[in-house]
Amino acid sequence: MTDTSILHRLAEVIEARRSADAGSSYVASLFDKGQDAILKKVAEESAETLLAAKDGDKLHLLRETADLWFHCLVMLSYYGLSPDDVLEELCRREGISGIEEKKDRNLLG
Amino acid sequence: MTDTSILHRLAEVIEARRSADAGSSYVASLFDKGQDAILKKVAEESAETLLAAKDGDKLHLLRETADLWFHCLVMLSYYGLSPDDVLEELCRREGISGIEEKKDRNLLG
Amino acid sequence: MTDTSILHRLAEVIEARRSADAGSSYVASLFDKGQDAILKKVAEESAETLLAAKDGDKLHLLRETADLWFHCLVMLSYYGLSPDDVLEELCRREGISGIEEKKDRNLLG
Amino acid sequence: MTDTSILHRLAEVIEARRSADAGSSYVASLFDKGQDAILKKVAEESAETLLAAKDGDKLHLLRETADLWFHCLVMLSYYGLSPDDVLEELCRREGISGIEEKKDRNLLG
Repeated sequence: MTDTSILHRLAEVIEARRSADAGSSYVASLFDKGQDAILKKVAEESAETLLAAKDGDKLHLLRETADLWFHCLVMLSYYGLSPDDVLEELCRREGISGIEEKKDRNLLG
Repeated sequence: MTDTSILHRLAEVIEARRSADAGSSYVASLFDKGQDAILKKVAEESAETLLAAKDGDKLHLLRETADLWFHCLVMLSYYGLSPDDVLEELCRREGISGIEEKKDRNLLG
Repeated sequence: MTDTSILHRLAEVIEARRSADAGSSYVASLFDKGQDAILKKVAEESAETLLAAKDGDKLHLLRETADLWFHCLVMLSYYGLSPDDVLEELCRREGISGIEEKKDRNLLG
Repeated sequence: MTDTSILHRLAEVIEARRSADAGSSYVASLFDKGQDAILKKVAEESAETLLAAKDGDKLHLLRETADLWFHCLVMLSYYGLSPDDVLEELCRREGISGIEEKKDRNLLG
């Protein structure tokens, strides 16, 4: 089983790079452009994930999903949040049947 | 630091539920509807993540990001992939400057 | 050639229905739920358009594109805008080479 | 009332440009890159529309909606379809209550 602390290590890399020179770091360039640039990347990677999935190309799908999660980490950092905050939220839900949870949160509509 | 193996535990839950009765499990109902239903959820949660982010509502953002990652896990399962596959891909990239990587993969266009 | 005033007629229908009883009209129910509900529909229809396009299913693609445009009209109405505002913007650009325009508006990045 | 035939004129421009040299025309460059490049643009413009809407910036929203519709026209052309096909689909629905139609098409889920 993979050491999943990669999410934490990447979060640290993002924290370290976010105030770097925009020309020297992709992450810094995103933070330099601001909120909408970061959110657009999340949306773009989500769309690219769908396109790869529809092609049934597993390697491509993995790469796009990795891109999506990476840009989620950038987004979380932008808002002062960490991957642990999301993982804890996922822990909180574990054991709850999805259908019950969706009903509970009224998200089925 | 959170035990990040939650991603693996959720993947196991999804594997266990995917062939359950569609009426008894949200995950089973998604698998029953098929590929497009799962991909639509990824797209919807991505959009909801953006809307929460624009509101600057951190708690809402965390919940939507958790929804997005959860549905990514469902999608990975649909394609016979695991969170480890994505985490390994992220590991592979660690240490590569994002700008170099993007140039390398010609994804900046 | 189709009478394209359908966009205007639909805009009028949306205006008429937006303050109707939420139980009696789909449009009224969207306005009743508010901004995010309307924007989620635009995002969902956009994703469904992509999925239909990847299937190469032309009839499905037409229907999803119609859904997307319809929900754009709902969104425009929500913000006090009309289809004419968008059509005028498109007229303004006509004759401009896309590449020139993109450069001009610095949207290629 | 705006002459809405702008959609038809743009469709003609797109048809004329799609086989032009990729370096000389934005539309030709999209067709040269292929299906996924066109669909990614539809997804990107949809996301940018949401971001502009959340800002409540009407001028920005108009421009992003125009971008979205324009790239829908490019997509339709890629699949051998015209704006009339979408407008006729919208005509077909006119007069149908949205709620009835949604129920009929089982799209509320």
